[in-house]
Amino acid sequence: MAATIIEKARSGEITERMTLAAAAECVDPHLVRDGIASGTIVLLDSAISRRKRPCAVGSGLVVKVNANIGSSADLESVEAELAKLDAAVAYGADTVMDLSTGPAWREILGRISSKSPVPLGTVPLYQVFGEHIAAGREVPEVPAERMLEAVEEHCAAGVDFLTLHCGVTRRALGLLKAEGRKLGIVSRGGSLLAEWMEKRGEENPLFSRFDDLIEILRRYDAAFSLGDGLRPGCLADASDRAQIEELITLGELQQRALGAGVQVMIEGPGHVPMDQIEHNIRLQKRICHGAPFYVLGPIVTDIAPGYDHITSAIGGAMAAWFGADFLCYVTPAEHLRLPDVEDVRVGTVTARIAAHAADIARGRPGSRDRDDAMAKARHDFDWETQFALALDPQKACDERRRAMPSDEDVCSMCGRLCAVRTSRRALEEGEAQD
Amino acid sequence: MAATIIEKARSGEITERMTLAAAAECVDPHLVRDGIASGTIVLLDSAISRRKRPCAVGSGLVVKVNANIGSSADLESVEAELAKLDAAVAYGADTVMDLSTGPAWREILGRISSKSPVPLGTVPLYQVFGEHIAAGREVPEVPAERMLEAVEEHCAAGVDFLTLHCGVTRRALGLLKAEGRKLGIVSRGGSLLAEWMEKRGEENPLFSRFDDLIEILRRYDAAFSLGDGLRPGCLADASDRAQIEELITLGELQQRALGAGVQVMIEGPGHVPMDQIEHNIRLQKRICHGAPFYVLGPIVTDIAPGYDHITSAIGGAMAAWFGADFLCYVTPAEHLRLPDVEDVRVGTVTARIAAHAADIARGRPGSRDRDDAMAKARHDFDWETQFALALDPQKACDERRRAMPSDEDVCSMCGRLCAVRTSRRALEEGEAQD
Repeated sequence: MAATIIEKARSGEITERMTLAAAAECVDPHLVRDGIASGTIVLLDSAISRRKRPCAVGSGLVVKVNANIGSSADLESVEAELAKLDAAVAYGADTVMDLSTGPAWREILGRISSKSPVPLGTVPLYQVFGEHIAAGREVPEVPAERMLEAVEEHCAAGVDFLTLHCGVTRRALGLLKAEGRKLGIVSRGGSLLAEWMEKRGEENPLFSRFDDLIEILRRYDAAFSLGDGLRPGCLADASDRAQIEELITLGELQQRALGAGVQVMIEGPGHVPMDQIEHNIRLQKRICHGAPFYVLGPIVTDIAPGYDHITSAIGGAMAAWFGADFLCYVTPAEHLRLPDVEDVRVGTVTARIAAHAADIARGRPGSRDRDDAMAKARHDFDWETQFALALDPQKACDERRRAMPSDEDVCSMCGRLCAVRTSRRALEEGEAQD
Repeated sequence: MAATIIEKARSGEITERMTLAAAAECVDPHLVRDGIASGTIVLLDSAISRRKRPCAVGSGLVVKVNANIGSSADLESVEAELAKLDAAVAYGADTVMDLSTGPAWREILGRISSKSPVPLGTVPLYQVFGEHIAAGREVPEVPAERMLEAVEEHCAAGVDFLTLHCGVTRRALGLLKAEGRKLGIVSRGGSLLAEWMEKRGEENPLFSRFDDLIEILRRYDAAFSLGDGLRPGCLADASDRAQIEELITLGELQQRALGAGVQVMIEGPGHVPMDQIEHNIRLQKRICHGAPFYVLGPIVTDIAPGYDHITSAIGGAMAAWFGADFLCYVTPAEHLRLPDVEDVRVGTVTARIAAHAADIARGRPGSRDRDDAMAKARHDFDWETQFALALDPQKACDERRRAMPSDEDVCSMCGRLCAVRTSRRALEEGEAQD
């Protein structure tokens, strides 16, 4: 049996792929190797995908960003999804997840997997349940075995990390029902498993057969992204007993997977008010032994549909500052419709803002260099350099050109009263006179 | 001499206007009166403006949002500015500032002042210097007396609060020059005063003649918004000695104004990395005796032109959580061009997101009610109520309609795999069977 990434790291080996991931963010490959060995870093790099840009996520590394793409049965187009992939990568996504659920999912996944230069994640249960429902069958009729087969099928398609909601246990569901949540379960995988479990009166097969999952993922050296199937879907439901019970289970499963040589990330909330973000992050890091934390949001208010890239940028920046390692973007379409290419662009840039702001706040060496270069370009009225340094150069350039001032040095906001120019006159000419 | 708002509050009086402002946010008018008396709350309500919605800002109150409107010489239209006023008020701005600097500023200010239902702020120095520069004269030629006349003229136009950069002293400028800032002075008022002071070798007249300013504002019962003329314009310049020296001076001036019966807010940064936001807020509150804090941003990274409504929403939400009382919006046009009506809409909604998220995090009673109602509407698939509860109902509705699912209950993101519906099947039908 071939050694996995984590086993190589434990044996002291620094692989070429570890070196590549370390070089991408200018860190010492020893740091990446040691983090992988201890489980505080994952190298997303399936044994069969060999992508151009393997990505390391976790402690001591730059905060990463994931972009979710993928179609639903209502809106399905292979070309549209490939265009979203391109946009996500162009605007700085470190990974993408294909969440397609429509009938053409196999083709879409295959095409995305072939094309993606960045690690690819999926949620295999979507297809299992999606196909059954499309065939007119009920959720509880899905055989547990079919779930495991789907996991294998995704691994074989070259998926680098798989979201699996293994912590949705009968005990956690019992707590959730006792809580009387306002919004129940808002994770697709979590809700489908809950229906399956409730109606069959059985335990979650992703939990009871976790060793089988380990065996499959190990074979492909794919990483677990242990899903938070019971994440809160509104502020009122945040940090309740069901959510924390699931987290405790994920911490136990993480240890089992690590013990078997398979890498693990933990997924986190969700809709969380700002004052609960820090303890959510610190609790996850404690309970899950420093595992990389992958958060969706957190969204800090429920009342801004159409602007949820912003509500999640606020929560994501804070989460990453407090220690989250990986931000899943949220687009302006969240809660309203399937995102399109423009949403992917805006969502990716916005999540990159949050991740970058957190890298700076965490005092990461060199993290402010690009900001300092922007300050210099602003001082010098060097607009081309400003655009080049912008997270979205095209947007910055287009916006400026929509209303140019008569004096091309400045911008039309202040015009002749441009503070930067006045400041230069005041401070620098003054100096010259001294 | 008529008693001012603050003098009435000190004498124990609760005026009709205090009651109106308190009722607007469901707080006890005693709280508003006591806060005004102690200087921790300002009631923005000039003696001559009598606007429909006087606004109280400060300790114990809902976090407020200001929208900057106004033209520059390059883009001047009265009608456009009135449309921006309408958009700002419609999307929830608690106040507006007219920052017009072009030749038609008097007409624009007059029309906005007549029309605005919410308190109006201005920066009188813009016009003083704008007119001189337009007439081909140099900044240092402006007589100090002209600055005071402009303040009076703005007060007479019904302005409720005036940004005055009284803390840009020779000592603070000396520190700034010694620091060797990357981006110098980025406040228009601050940079103009600096040039005036440097080239004349004189002290800032807004500082040296502060008693005259007090006398003018007192006559109209307008409030000081003591400007941060030396705020940082990039992350590298944040929290430096010049910025803090100015803050110390503002704290001294605040006491003098309060002593003379004139209300005061303090303005704050600017471009500030996330890890420096908390101490900026706590320092201001300590040094300025709990005065209401009005922040522009803070912007948490310099590299996102075109997205600075988002960089400032991250900083603004955190600032307000730590105690800032009043958020000045930043629009997507910041650093690039004069904002248009659509920018005003997006900027206002985004700042409202930040303010609301902070109200929730601060545990303000009732602050989560609207979020809870949204959660219920989501649970019930009640889309009309979701739109009605949204901060931008039109945007939410338009986005959803851009890609409707075949099943109108759900949305096209998850389609048939809608988690909320599956969750209801799993948890609620299960309950019915029990």
